[in-house]
Amino acid sequence: MLNKVNREIPDDILKDKNYKPFETTEIGNPETTYVAHNVKVTQGDDKLVDSIPDVIAKTGLKNGMTISFHHHFREGDFVFNMVMQEIINEGFQDLTLAPSSLTNVMNDMVIKAIKAGTISHITSSGMRGSLGDFISHGGLKDPVVLRSHGNRARSIENGDIKIDVAFLGVPNADAVGNANAIHGDAVFGSMGYSLMDAKYADKVVLLTDTIMPYPNTPASIKQTQVDYVVKVPKVGDPDKIGSGATRFTKDPKELKIAEMVNQVITHSPYFKDGFSFQTGSGGAALAVSRYLRKSMIQKNIKASFALGGITKPTVDLLEEGLVDKILDVQDFDKGAAASMANNENQQEIDSSWYADPYNKGAAVNQLDVCILSALEIDTKFNVNVMTGSDGVLRGAIGGHQDAANAKLTIISAPLVRGRIATVVPDVTTVVTPGDSIDVLVTEVGIAINPKRKDLIAALKNVPGVPVYTIEELQKRAEAIVGKPEKLQFTDRPVALIEYRDGSLIDTVYQVKD
Amino acid sequence: MLNKVNREIPDDILKDKNYKPFETTEIGNPETTYVAHNVKVTQGDDKLVDSIPDVIAKTGLKNGMTISFHHHFREGDFVFNMVMQEIINEGFQDLTLAPSSLTNVMNDMVIKAIKAGTISHITSSGMRGSLGDFISHGGLKDPVVLRSHGNRARSIENGDIKIDVAFLGVPNADAVGNANAIHGDAVFGSMGYSLMDAKYADKVVLLTDTIMPYPNTPASIKQTQVDYVVKVPKVGDPDKIGSGATRFTKDPKELKIAEMVNQVITHSPYFKDGFSFQTGSGGAALAVSRYLRKSMIQKNIKASFALGGITKPTVDLLEEGLVDKILDVQDFDKGAAASMANNENQQEIDSSWYADPYNKGAAVNQLDVCILSALEIDTKFNVNVMTGSDGVLRGAIGGHQDAANAKLTIISAPLVRGRIATVVPDVTTVVTPGDSIDVLVTEVGIAINPKRKDLIAALKNVPGVPVYTIEELQKRAEAIVGKPEKLQFTDRPVALIEYRDGSLIDTVYQVKD
Repeated sequence: MLNKVNREIPDDILKDKNYKPFETTEIGNPETTYVAHNVKVTQGDDKLVDSIPDVIAKTGLKNGMTISFHHHFREGDFVFNMVMQEIINEGFQDLTLAPSSLTNVMNDMVIKAIKAGTISHITSSGMRGSLGDFISHGGLKDPVVLRSHGNRARSIENGDIKIDVAFLGVPNADAVGNANAIHGDAVFGSMGYSLMDAKYADKVVLLTDTIMPYPNTPASIKQTQVDYVVKVPKVGDPDKIGSGATRFTKDPKELKIAEMVNQVITHSPYFKDGFSFQTGSGGAALAVSRYLRKSMIQKNIKASFALGGITKPTVDLLEEGLVDKILDVQDFDKGAAASMANNENQQEIDSSWYADPYNKGAAVNQLDVCILSALEIDTKFNVNVMTGSDGVLRGAIGGHQDAANAKLTIISAPLVRGRIATVVPDVTTVVTPGDSIDVLVTEVGIAINPKRKDLIAALKNVPGVPVYTIEELQKRAEAIVGKPEKLQFTDRPVALIEYRDGSLIDTVYQVKD
Repeated sequence: MLNKVNREIPDDILKDKNYKPFETTEIGNPETTYVAHNVKVTQGDDKLVDSIPDVIAKTGLKNGMTISFHHHFREGDFVFNMVMQEIINEGFQDLTLAPSSLTNVMNDMVIKAIKAGTISHITSSGMRGSLGDFISHGGLKDPVVLRSHGNRARSIENGDIKIDVAFLGVPNADAVGNANAIHGDAVFGSMGYSLMDAKYADKVVLLTDTIMPYPNTPASIKQTQVDYVVKVPKVGDPDKIGSGATRFTKDPKELKIAEMVNQVITHSPYFKDGFSFQTGSGGAALAVSRYLRKSMIQKNIKASFALGGITKPTVDLLEEGLVDKILDVQDFDKGAAASMANNENQQEIDSSWYADPYNKGAAVNQLDVCILSALEIDTKFNVNVMTGSDGVLRGAIGGHQDAANAKLTIISAPLVRGRIATVVPDVTTVVTPGDSIDVLVTEVGIAINPKRKDLIAALKNVPGVPVYTIEELQKRAEAIVGKPEKLQFTDRPVALIEYRDGSLIDTVYQVKD
């Protein structure tokens, strides 16, 4: 059958996996029941464990269980490989891997674990590089399930993801498990995603290189949640956790897009005192922050909050008084991570608070302006951030579907990348439905979602911001790079793209070699 | 049958209420499952409600449900009476009232609600004054269930207390429910007890007199937990939330006890750098803080943390650098409540973290020294903090059973109060089993639990601290005040005293008029 973004959803997947096809971006007011978790009561004096093999034995890990990790250490993560290697060594089979996301530094180990039969199921926010390639070529029998950060929170709360054992690397912890990510050698700032695992996993293992005196505060993860604490030599490489320095782009195309994004924001009805925004990471996002800062000073406008994955330029706005609060689920660079220890208005939030569609109201619902990226965007404004021009998995949903809830959701993307069009008739993979996208900004001009007549009116005469229809932009891209050959896929699904409410929005198939 | 503290436990209560008799203070490592709660999903824009009647209607409150409140406003609470009066007015019947505790300012309203049939069951930490009197004289058909703060956390987590609707007064909140108790007119500092309600109740209503801009941080209660926010004229009287000024006792007897308590602490093996303590409230406790401060300075000893209900003198120790951290579940005075906004090392903790016996390790398990009070203590060191010399309910378990877990638990109490002995052959009501009490300190000397041979050795030659057996102290008290007449009770239970693990430790019967 076809779902509401016109994607063919195989009947057997709807049936076997008990999926509903994607219907709408409106969540409504369903009633739901959060799942219970199991607790082995301890008084706390027996939590320190000497080694990873010992702690694996203590957790009672068994074949077929679900294990989780977080990706806050990003490319500097040492914990995943240490733990996973030991789990492979011990011959465990048929585990489900349910991390908050997978970074490149984990790729080889995941492939190894799949080949050893240790991992047979994966749910993640995304995957890139060799792992994406391996999965897209049919490396895993069961399709990977890809979920947004908010959807992972939802799934953990309602039991779609039931974590048996969470292995969570932290830069510090005391002997009973009070931990934060703002002190120690491998500081990563907000523990956002991992807080869900700490709250809902049956067994929670912390791995740290720094044991603090009791009581270790602030305690983002609390002693009441933790079963075991393992001291390891090093949890991560601080230099690879985030980009060390903040580099603004010098690419004229990116600068032009950033300037136009800023024009769209400042000419929208949302640019007024107390507005809120999420900019994301990357050179263009940083450039937007810089233009936005200037506009805010010029117009004497201050923001009530900035949301999401946080960068140093956003922290600078906080410290400058241009932003009142930061709601921080993840830090993208050292500066943002380090500042958490000192800025009481940089509030750590978990991924439920950030973006969960099935709670009593997440922060994304309060968001005015959001800037997101795209690998592809099509004439229905549907966005692909998951598969490349070769059809191979090379992205992550992250908070894309979630933050697109903002009142003004802007896709910032070049018209073409090299010989590849970004604006296309139909995206290869629908991740975020066009219904939640308001404006596309490219280097040649913008396209406004036709349903946003208010924005069409507001943005029709902005200096330096030509307005096109999205079909015009698509044709313009095609004129530059031509029509690509149609991608060839087998009929075997390798990944299922969930919408944030858990419905099925698209399927990724094995590529034809 | 007789339980392990030799209390007759009626068979029908064991059976009808599915109780186990109290056996041991050892908790062990049971496996338990936390309960799920129900969530009505909302995106957050519909939470502000104009009035208490409106919000009661929205919560779907029904006859037979369980409602909860907290007692952090203590005698300055306006919220309980506002809400309860409306619930009575609307004719609800057969509700269970499950507050964290009941203060005197709530007494008349609770009695009114019982008489109206609105409340038919109560669980609380305790009750005093007119309500204790009313219940002890048979005012409620079903016996009240009395639980420690840690036991309430346990009971909420495992479903023994299932809260349908929590009505939580807060000094501030934003329109979607982010709230703390450190800003606003009616600041009470730590939200400790109420955090359990916010986490586990199906419906959470905040009542506040101060609506803050979004996002209100720090958020002790989070928008993800809150269904409705109601603005009311005033949530509490700041002057009655805690004793405004910190008054040290001038009573020579109390001073003598405090000095001796300090001698016991400083001559115990626990008084060393990095030790921890809980002192509690009241004039004598404050005096202990003062003596302890001097000893710490003299011996150059610093504490790693102070725990529990917190007072200004404890905050002073923190600010002076004599205490590294405060783990704060409740603030007993304005000074302690106010300082939370400024001291990052004054960490708010919920009552599970504080004292829950059935989690992965509470703070009380890490506690070295604890000073507790007693209405009565008997020759088995069992302590009564619940019933007066007339057999009437006039106390609260509070954290008594929980903190008695400390390595050195000291009962600080006068030998006699007026014409009434404190040290008795058998307490009227066993709240905390003698097994967890180590030393009794009175104005004439101390008694050490015979099982603590280490303490007997350590404290045998402390200047100014005569050591007696507890039988000697009991006889001495009896010599002063004589043998009281035996209290007369009917055979009708009016209150069940749970031990912190949920077993039944004692029963309080209706008094004979």
